[in-house]
Amino acid sequence: MTSTLTQQVEQAAPQPTHRVAVELAKAYRLLNHGPTVLVSAAHEGRRNVMAAAWNMPLDFNPPKVAVVIDKQTYTGALIEASGEFVLSVPPVALVHQVVAAGNQSGRDVDDKFEACGLRSAPASLVAAPLVEGCLAWLECRLLPEPAMAGRYDLFLAEVVAAWADPAVFSEGRWHFEHDAQRSLHHVAGGAFFATGEAVQA
Amino acid sequence: MTSTLTQQVEQAAPQPTHRVAVELAKAYRLLNHGPTVLVSAAHEGRRNVMAAAWNMPLDFNPPKVAVVIDKQTYTGALIEASGEFVLSVPPVALVHQVVAAGNQSGRDVDDKFEACGLRSAPASLVAAPLVEGCLAWLECRLLPEPAMAGRYDLFLAEVVAAWADPAVFSEGRWHFEHDAQRSLHHVAGGAFFATGEAVQA
Repeated sequence: MTSTLTQQVEQAAPQPTHRVAVELAKAYRLLNHGPTVLVSAAHEGRRNVMAAAWNMPLDFNPPKVAVVIDKQTYTGALIEASGEFVLSVPPVALVHQVVAAGNQSGRDVDDKFEACGLRSAPASLVAAPLVEGCLAWLECRLLPEPAMAGRYDLFLAEVVAAWADPAVFSEGRWHFEHDAQRSLHHVAGGAFFATGEAVQA
Repeated sequence: MTSTLTQQVEQAAPQPTHRVAVELAKAYRLLNHGPTVLVSAAHEGRRNVMAAAWNMPLDFNPPKVAVVIDKQTYTGALIEASGEFVLSVPPVALVHQVVAAGNQSGRDVDDKFEACGLRSAPASLVAAPLVEGCLAWLECRLLPEPAMAGRYDLFLAEVVAAWADPAVFSEGRWHFEHDAQRSLHHVAGGAFFATGEAVQA
């Protein structure tokens, strides 16, 4: 099974992505199934991106999210400086780029997007860029909870805009048709699961 | 695909579960891929259980977790009173019980485990029970962050013991072989995804 999926990954070069606005009251559904995300941030002409499996919705409407981001990381520093970030939900097709974004620091390269083979697109309400080729995006503004960031590297934020590729998410639900376009769930050390079969109770 | 999985669910009655201790430093791997969990709590002879998709690891070692639990719920009240809870990771085979646990209140029934068709087993270090038939379990003690519970229904806790069914998790990794024994990822309204194919970067 894995080798078939790997072949599909090789064949599926990221295409410029369609983006359709997601109603804010349904933005939690972009994260509710627990995908690993890319976190991007920008401040004063610098930008960066990293991977984060530790994320979850925190409220429905206005939508809020929680994400754990090591303050020592360059992305963490850009978030603390700018008060903004974007969560992008990457597909299986980007698994190598996700691992690259998780393994190197933006402090060691001119531009980590380029170093990881990721392209960006402008967000609508925040300076942090969207990651091109992803399935969904949440533009976020930090909530003022510095004690949580200080004690736990835990960042709480309000989602101010949300987007999804209508090929995989529309009318408030995910509909994965191609294995390379499923979302990813990291376990450890570059081992992921793809989002699997639909189960309706 | 869904109908096949539903047939498997019907055929897979929960069996008494094997449990093997998971090294605390690797307990985060039980939640890292973003499964929906059952949260159980007990206090002064009362116990309850509910479903929670909004959970994530918060630290590696000692392991910590974050979970969103409406304080108005009976489970939330038992957690605040006892300072303890258990997260159990349910399989596809328990999807109907998970939805039942998410849809009714323990205040309306004598015992919600029985009302939902769930069985319990004693935990090792906390009074909250484990949910029998699950894939993995994390015994948790609340961290003293009442402002987070107050403002966001956000409970932070330290994991004091962790267990997994060695049929699906051993030596620090998940290995799902039967579709009814995969973990679950809730989206909304009883629509879930099963954990899918392994993807190694």
